[in-house]
Amino acid sequence: MRAAVMYGAGDVRVEDRPDPKIAQPTDAVVRVVASCVCGSDLWPYASMPATGTGRPMGHEFLGVVEETGADVTGLSAGDLVVAPFTYSDNSCDYCAEGLHISCRNGGRYGFDGVDGGQGEAVRVPHADGTLVRLPVAPDSALLPSLLALSDVMTTGHHGALTAGVTRGDTVLVVGDGAVGLCSVIAARRLGAERIVLAGRHPARTGLGRDLGATDVVAERGEEGVARIRELTGGVGKVVEAVGTRPALDTALGAVRDGGTISRLGVPQYEQGPIGPAVFMRNITLTGGASPARAYIEHLMPDVLDGTITPGRVFDETFALGRTTDAYRAMADRRVLKALIRP
Amino acid sequence: MRAAVMYGAGDVRVEDRPDPKIAQPTDAVVRVVASCVCGSDLWPYASMPATGTGRPMGHEFLGVVEETGADVTGLSAGDLVVAPFTYSDNSCDYCAEGLHISCRNGGRYGFDGVDGGQGEAVRVPHADGTLVRLPVAPDSALLPSLLALSDVMTTGHHGALTAGVTRGDTVLVVGDGAVGLCSVIAARRLGAERIVLAGRHPARTGLGRDLGATDVVAERGEEGVARIRELTGGVGKVVEAVGTRPALDTALGAVRDGGTISRLGVPQYEQGPIGPAVFMRNITLTGGASPARAYIEHLMPDVLDGTITPGRVFDETFALGRTTDAYRAMADRRVLKALIRP
Repeated sequence: MRAAVMYGAGDVRVEDRPDPKIAQPTDAVVRVVASCVCGSDLWPYASMPATGTGRPMGHEFLGVVEETGADVTGLSAGDLVVAPFTYSDNSCDYCAEGLHISCRNGGRYGFDGVDGGQGEAVRVPHADGTLVRLPVAPDSALLPSLLALSDVMTTGHHGALTAGVTRGDTVLVVGDGAVGLCSVIAARRLGAERIVLAGRHPARTGLGRDLGATDVVAERGEEGVARIRELTGGVGKVVEAVGTRPALDTALGAVRDGGTISRLGVPQYEQGPIGPAVFMRNITLTGGASPARAYIEHLMPDVLDGTITPGRVFDETFALGRTTDAYRAMADRRVLKALIRP
Repeated sequence: MRAAVMYGAGDVRVEDRPDPKIAQPTDAVVRVVASCVCGSDLWPYASMPATGTGRPMGHEFLGVVEETGADVTGLSAGDLVVAPFTYSDNSCDYCAEGLHISCRNGGRYGFDGVDGGQGEAVRVPHADGTLVRLPVAPDSALLPSLLALSDVMTTGHHGALTAGVTRGDTVLVVGDGAVGLCSVIAARRLGAERIVLAGRHPARTGLGRDLGATDVVAERGEEGVARIRELTGGVGKVVEAVGTRPALDTALGAVRDGGTISRLGVPQYEQGPIGPAVFMRNITLTGGASPARAYIEHLMPDVLDGTITPGRVFDETFALGRTTDAYRAMADRRVLKALIRP
C-alpha cells in the first residue's frame, strides 16, 4: 500500500509500505476513506531529527473494516468506522473511567509496528475497544465532520468540559487552529453565552465567529490580555489550544482569579509559571491529551443531525500522493486543516 | 501594646507598638485572646533580608471586639470573634463567589498599616465582612480548634475540597505539618476511606493517624513515590501541603493519570514541571491560597460539637513575650504549631 512517512523535519514521503495484516486476534484492518494532517504533526515536521527508517504518519482517520481478527466481535467487514487518535481496549480501569488516552493496553498510530492513518490502510489494535461504527455511507457529506471526531472535535470538547463550561458562561479560547475552532463549537454546545476567540488569522477567526465566537481578539501578548480584560473583566474558563508559552501566558493573564485554564495544545515547554502568583490567585490548570474515544458516541448525534459542523475546519482536500504538499500548506498556514483522500 | 515584629531572618522581637485605633468607619479593634505562628511565617524567618522598620507578624487570631467603627453593624464590643488570615469585605464579586482571598478590598495583616495577629490587639479593616462571631466564652476549651479556623483548618478544607475528595476516595496528603494534618481531618470529614499521609516526623504522623490517616509513608523522593504506588496503585486525589519542589514531585509521582493535585503550601519555586508528561497524563493542578472566610461558618458546627478537633495541632503554648522562642521552636521542628497567648 501507499502511506506517508516522515524522515525528518520537512521531509514527508509517500511510499510503498507492507499491506497491513491481522497480527493479533483483537486487530482489524481498516481501508482508509479519509484521514488528515494534525497541528501536532507540524511539530515533528518543524524539528524532527533526520532518520533512516522514518515514521508512518497520521493518527486521525475513518474507513471501512476490511478484515477482523478472531476475537473481534463488534465489527464486521464492510463497517464504516472512525478511529480515535489513539487505540485503547475500552475495558481497563482507565478506559472505564473515561480516560482512554491512558489505556493500559493503548498506544499511538505510527509507533510500535502500527501503521499511521495517512495511508491506504491501517492495522488497528484492540479494534473492538477502539473503533466506532458510523451509521452513514462512505460517501456521506457528513464524513469530514465525523472525521473530526477522531481528534479535533473530541479534543475541543475535552477542553470545554474540563474547563467546566456551563450554560451562560464567558469562555476564552486561545488559538484559532482547528482545535481552537472546535473548542469554540464545544463551548457553544455546552451553553457558553460569550466566547472570546484569541487569534490573528482573519479567515480562521471569521470561521470562528460562524461557529459561535462572539468576540475576536487579534492582539497578542500584553496587548491581547489587556483587550480581553477590557472586554470581559477577566475570564473564568479558558481553553488554551496552542501549546506554546506565549499562549499559556495569554491564558494566565486573561483568566480571572479562581478560574480554570484547560490546556489542549501539547506543551512546547517543560517548565511553566506555577509559582506564588498563580497559587495566590487560585488558578486551576487542567485538560491534557483528550480521551477521544470517551466522547465519540456522545458527540456523534450532534454531528449526524447537523447541530455541530466541525468538518468546516477542513479547508482543502489532498490526494494521498500529495500529502507532502498538505504538510507544506499547513506549515505555511495557507491551509487550516488538510483532509487526505487515499 | 506589645506585639511581635520581624526585622529579618531569625530576628523576631516583641516590642511596644502604637495601640490600634479605629481609622475607618468599617474597622474594629480586637483585643487578642489567642494567636499563633504559621508555617508560612517560617519562610521569612529563614530568609527575610534585614530591615530597619520591621514587619508586624501573625495572621491567625481570635479575640474580643473592643471597639467598632461607625459603619460596623454586625459586631459589638464584647463579641468573641475569629479572624480569617486575610481581611475581606465579604461583598465584592470575588467574595460573592466564595473567593475571599481575592477580595477587591482585602488585604493582609502586618501590611499597609494593619497590625499583625501576634500582639495584644489588632485593627481589623472591613470588620463586618471579615470577623466571625464565636458562640463560646473566651475561656472555652474549644478555643484552639476555633483558632484553627483562622487558617490551617480552613486551608486543609480548601485542599480536600478542591482536590474533589468525596465519600470512599483514596487521598494522599503530602506533608505532616499543621496544614497537612488539617488536610487529613478535612479529607476524612468529606468521606475519604483511605488517607495516606506522607511525612517523616513520628510524633506528627502519629497525630495524623489519630486524626484519620490510614497509612503513613515516611520514605521520601522516588522511594516514597514507589511506596505510595505500592500501597495504592496511584492516587486520584492529592493534597500537597508543603510548597517545596520535592513535595510537588512526590505528588506528581504518586498521582494517578487523570488525577488532581491541590496545592496548599505556598510554592517555594517560580517554575514547575507542567510539560508534555503532565499534559499527556491529564493531571489537574488546583488549590491555592485558601479563602478561609468562605469556610468558617461551614466548619464551625463540626468544631463546636467535637466532630473535628483541629486544635490538636497546637502542641505548645507560649506567652506573647516568648514569641521569639515560639519561632525558634517551630523552625527547629521541636514544636508543630505554637499557640501564643498575650
